[in-house]
Amino acid sequence: MARPQEFDTTKVLHKAMHLFWERGYEATSLDDLLTKTWLSRSSFYNTFGSKEELFLEAFDTYRAERKQELQQVLEHGPARQAIEAFFRKIIPDARSPEASLGCLITNQAVEQAPHEPKIRKRVEEDFQFVEEALTRTIERGQREGSVGSQREARELARLFVVALPGFHVMVRSGVDRSRLEDALQVLLANLD
Amino acid sequence: MARPQEFDTTKVLHKAMHLFWERGYEATSLDDLLTKTWLSRSSFYNTFGSKEELFLEAFDTYRAERKQELQQVLEHGPARQAIEAFFRKIIPDARSPEASLGCLITNQAVEQAPHEPKIRKRVEEDFQFVEEALTRTIERGQREGSVGSQREARELARLFVVALPGFHVMVRSGVDRSRLEDALQVLLANLD
Repeated sequence: MARPQEFDTTKVLHKAMHLFWERGYEATSLDDLLTKTWLSRSSFYNTFGSKEELFLEAFDTYRAERKQELQQVLEHGPARQAIEAFFRKIIPDARSPEASLGCLITNQAVEQAPHEPKIRKRVEEDFQFVEEALTRTIERGQREGSVGSQREARELARLFVVALPGFHVMVRSGVDRSRLEDALQVLLANLD
Repeated sequence: MARPQEFDTTKVLHKAMHLFWERGYEATSLDDLLTKTWLSRSSFYNTFGSKEELFLEAFDTYRAERKQELQQVLEHGPARQAIEAFFRKIIPDARSPEASLGCLITNQAVEQAPHEPKIRKRVEEDFQFVEEALTRTIERGQREGSVGSQREARELARLFVVALPGFHVMVRSGVDRSRLEDALQVLLANLD
């Protein structure tokens, strides 16, 4: 009979995810991971194999959660308001510790995507996913009337997809929120 | 009489800058730097002090060059065309090795700004610098007529400042250029 794992894999993955999100892949050492997750070296290797494999698992968990969140926000209410709500979540009034980390996908687009095909493929898929979701939402808004612009929905969506990592980078670098609020107002006016 | 340095400090700084730009600060080891710059360990320490000090010097060199480039491009021709030219330089048709690295300032906004006050301060200054330069250029365009939008110049500039690192991140992660072209067209239409 297999001995039951003495730790909760989901919790461990989230702790590791948070470290990678905060510090990046390179700057997170195996010792940091062991300290944060309370795993022994042998449990770590038996469960996750390597730092790289743990990273991919934590990254995929993060990506799945963000996709689900995106879909939920975009499906809720009129399209224009749903898109605003999605972007407004990125720029919180209070500097919550998690919000100020930006987005792990954007961070990895910078850190590993240029030289790691596995990361590049995932980041590319994620930007494509956001483009498809925003295109569908803008089309819905054009049908229901909450989006007044008659520009091609996909073209509009592509501006929002570029703005997204822009906001993430600026939030992560600690830029004053009022500047981001102004940018968001002008961005959203593209839907009118 | 002081013995003359047997290497060109400017060239060494550019070689180091390129490594940091390509790989990031953490992922660039002292050995990588010595190999790339052909410096001995003692020359390295005598001249630059430490990896951190060399980074700051290379980073400041990069920042000064980008600022000069920004000013030159924005001063050339009608404001609308100048802003387009500036953004078009980010999305090259051919995948030149340097262009695909994105921007070292954006990369550092992600990598070190969150926990290194010296980097955070510089990145903040740089985003502010771009905001001021774009605000002045948009105001000029509104006066001369190349920018039709009568929206507050600073608000418009702030959307462009957010879009800037967005383009950098997407170029660096290898996103298809035609998507960025579409985004740029919609972005520029905000000036009309």
